[in-house]
Amino acid sequence: MSRATDMVPALRSLVGAEHVLTDPEQLVPYGHDESDLGDFPPQVVVRVGSASEVSAILRLCGDQGVPVTPSAARSGKSGGSLPVHGGLSLSVERLNRILAIRKEDLTGTVQAGVITGDYMKAVEAQGLFYPPDPASLAFCTLGGNVAENAGGPRALKYGVTREYILGLEVVLPTGEILRTGKRTIKGVAGYDITALIVGSEGMLGVVTEITTKLLPLPREVQTGLCLFKDSGAASRAVSAVLAAGVLPRALEFIDDVAIAASAAAKAPFQFPPSCGAAVLVEVDGNVPEACSREIERVGEICQREGAIDVLLAQSESQRRDIWETRRRVSINLKALHPLKISEDIAVPRSRIPDMVAEIRAIGGKLGLQVSCYGHAGDGNLHANVLYDRPEERPRVDEAVGDMLRAAIGMGGTITGEHGVGLAKKEFLELEQGPDLIALQRRLKALFDPKGILNPGKMFPGP
Amino acid sequence: MSRATDMVPALRSLVGAEHVLTDPEQLVPYGHDESDLGDFPPQVVVRVGSASEVSAILRLCGDQGVPVTPSAARSGKSGGSLPVHGGLSLSVERLNRILAIRKEDLTGTVQAGVITGDYMKAVEAQGLFYPPDPASLAFCTLGGNVAENAGGPRALKYGVTREYILGLEVVLPTGEILRTGKRTIKGVAGYDITALIVGSEGMLGVVTEITTKLLPLPREVQTGLCLFKDSGAASRAVSAVLAAGVLPRALEFIDDVAIAASAAAKAPFQFPPSCGAAVLVEVDGNVPEACSREIERVGEICQREGAIDVLLAQSESQRRDIWETRRRVSINLKALHPLKISEDIAVPRSRIPDMVAEIRAIGGKLGLQVSCYGHAGDGNLHANVLYDRPEERPRVDEAVGDMLRAAIGMGGTITGEHGVGLAKKEFLELEQGPDLIALQRRLKALFDPKGILNPGKMFPGP
Repeated sequence: MSRATDMVPALRSLVGAEHVLTDPEQLVPYGHDESDLGDFPPQVVVRVGSASEVSAILRLCGDQGVPVTPSAARSGKSGGSLPVHGGLSLSVERLNRILAIRKEDLTGTVQAGVITGDYMKAVEAQGLFYPPDPASLAFCTLGGNVAENAGGPRALKYGVTREYILGLEVVLPTGEILRTGKRTIKGVAGYDITALIVGSEGMLGVVTEITTKLLPLPREVQTGLCLFKDSGAASRAVSAVLAAGVLPRALEFIDDVAIAASAAAKAPFQFPPSCGAAVLVEVDGNVPEACSREIERVGEICQREGAIDVLLAQSESQRRDIWETRRRVSINLKALHPLKISEDIAVPRSRIPDMVAEIRAIGGKLGLQVSCYGHAGDGNLHANVLYDRPEERPRVDEAVGDMLRAAIGMGGTITGEHGVGLAKKEFLELEQGPDLIALQRRLKALFDPKGILNPGKMFPGP
Repeated sequence: MSRATDMVPALRSLVGAEHVLTDPEQLVPYGHDESDLGDFPPQVVVRVGSASEVSAILRLCGDQGVPVTPSAARSGKSGGSLPVHGGLSLSVERLNRILAIRKEDLTGTVQAGVITGDYMKAVEAQGLFYPPDPASLAFCTLGGNVAENAGGPRALKYGVTREYILGLEVVLPTGEILRTGKRTIKGVAGYDITALIVGSEGMLGVVTEITTKLLPLPREVQTGLCLFKDSGAASRAVSAVLAAGVLPRALEFIDDVAIAASAAAKAPFQFPPSCGAAVLVEVDGNVPEACSREIERVGEICQREGAIDVLLAQSESQRRDIWETRRRVSINLKALHPLKISEDIAVPRSRIPDMVAEIRAIGGKLGLQVSCYGHAGDGNLHANVLYDRPEERPRVDEAVGDMLRAAIGMGGTITGEHGVGLAKKEFLELEQGPDLIALQRRLKALFDPKGILNPGKMFPGP
């Protein structure tokens, strides 16, 4: 019996027996996420129904010294929801109600477990727009997006999750339920606790309710695909587009390996055989002619940089196929090799071609197949190291270390949007140095004096 | 002799005698800002030349228990730079170098004392764009903008200062010099200390260097002015424009009193006599026809809401005159009454007409002339209470209190962009409640255990 299982009767009376899971089979999924970092099942899962339940559970766990790891869809890429120290998995999946969409105010309020894609559809039905679009939008939650400060292709024009979060209901590890931020578009009263909670990877508090900014839905969207012979030309084209003063809403890079994986996995859009790299571009606005002119300009720049073809999506279904193919690259790479580690570096935009070349060189040197794709317009590249057998892992880790060090060497960061979590905690000091980490540890201790909330994440050490 | 003046020899040897001011006449300007809250001259002014000087001064003041208030252009509206507890005014005005503009990366780095308008001009010369445009841009500094998370008209489309700050060099009150954030567009490594420092009103650290995001400069800007008979119609038009799914880059409201003040002060643009309120609209983009179509749409909506005329700026000089007139409203109001208190509430967008009506009603009830203008598209209204003699101040304070309570009652905030500072510290609890303030006080103590940095601000009490 662990301290966590001792708490089961109390938890059952708090949230109802049906929302406390203890059967080992039920616990397994809560020990796994999309990071492929391993399996860390909790002792108990509690599916909470309200902020006051979260508060009571956190107080109880504080008293008993039981670790609590918040979870939702478990779609994270850095291990943020893995209960690495055991204890409780505190799932917000039942907090799945859209509470308000205020068309006249251009704001909305949701519970933390609402699926991002569901919220997008709901606001679009009212002519509104919630831009942040992580590739997992069909299953990830807004609570998870807030915890990780999720990005996505449209961040190029519209920014990341942070830019849309006006206010939160958050339960501190000590049990206080706070309402932070505002329901207005602007507001600067007090320190920006909301901004500090966004991206804090479920370590400073459990978010239960989220108020977001919304935009008017752009009336026109146009999507194109520029095909290149190789990655060098395609990555230089990304830099050239940005240097020309064009800022599409998305500018995504897809390399030869990702294209081969899409073919192997029979993705809905099939690239022509001559194509060794591609740049996906999307523009939006309210005036169709202006969008056409913008996307044509991108096409011209790409052709100057050696594009072998520029395709414009001719229908909504073709557009969907292209995006579906892009969004599934991460999963489809497993059609080439069953195992992979997905990195998430970002570099200054001018260094995109250098970084793409460097990633390929590191793979070549270590004899590993690598694939590099993602939000190149932001300088944010998902570098994947593919492998077949767990025994290859030390070499994979060497490649990952080399890539992260190369990104830092170019003035970049170890994580553009996936977070540090478990995946990169040993690399944080390389990027930030000891003083900044010491300050962050003091902040963590201020919010969570007993160290019960999501322990073992972000900072070097156990 | 105070402890601050005892430190003068040490300060002189640290920064050079010419940068330590002690002559009472030289001290006066550092005791005053644009808040009209009174005069609080420091005992000593130190004009620092580097982060390491800031660090040494903060350590010295920590040892001696001497208060330090950071300052720059002293253009703040909430008293953030006023040394209310005396001691040192630590001025970053000499840190006025633009260190880099990286066109290919769409980023730039400046010292904290660079004038915002100078930075804008420098990046525009390279075809780039720094959107945040506080009305004081001709003299305010980027360091001050970061401290207060400054807004401005373009925040409607482009967001406030926070959205453009990628990384900071900041000196903690305990003397550590930290580099926070990133130089890439995206990056989520660690807690977002940068976002916490932005808007912390010079209470958590002294910012010395700032890396900002930049955008490509829009190739086309069009400006119009919709004239109305009265404030009611104009404020309803603002809501109607937004409800129609149009998001111009600026949508500013100007009431009858502000128009009268512009006439009295002979502002460069003169409103026709029939005009009792106006809505200034500006759109931008890369395709002139698309901009024309957007601004025409705004004009049509305004006419449906009762506009008596819609003017389009016909030249760059007319555009400049209109904006100059708008930017000087705050100053020109003194042409009507020598004294004023400028409030800065924000409400949900749908409540703009209600709030405009409420502000006028409060003025009427208390027999005070009020003027209401500003970034109505964001729900952010500058409500000014005008008066002639200091003896009227209690009635003015009553009006201010009524306005702040009305804003909170509508789901709004006591400050959309000016900050809490000295001006609104007794109202923060009305908006945020005791628990959130207690957390912020703990944060302040973590950053500044000796309480030396900008004491007497933001929180209720002395």
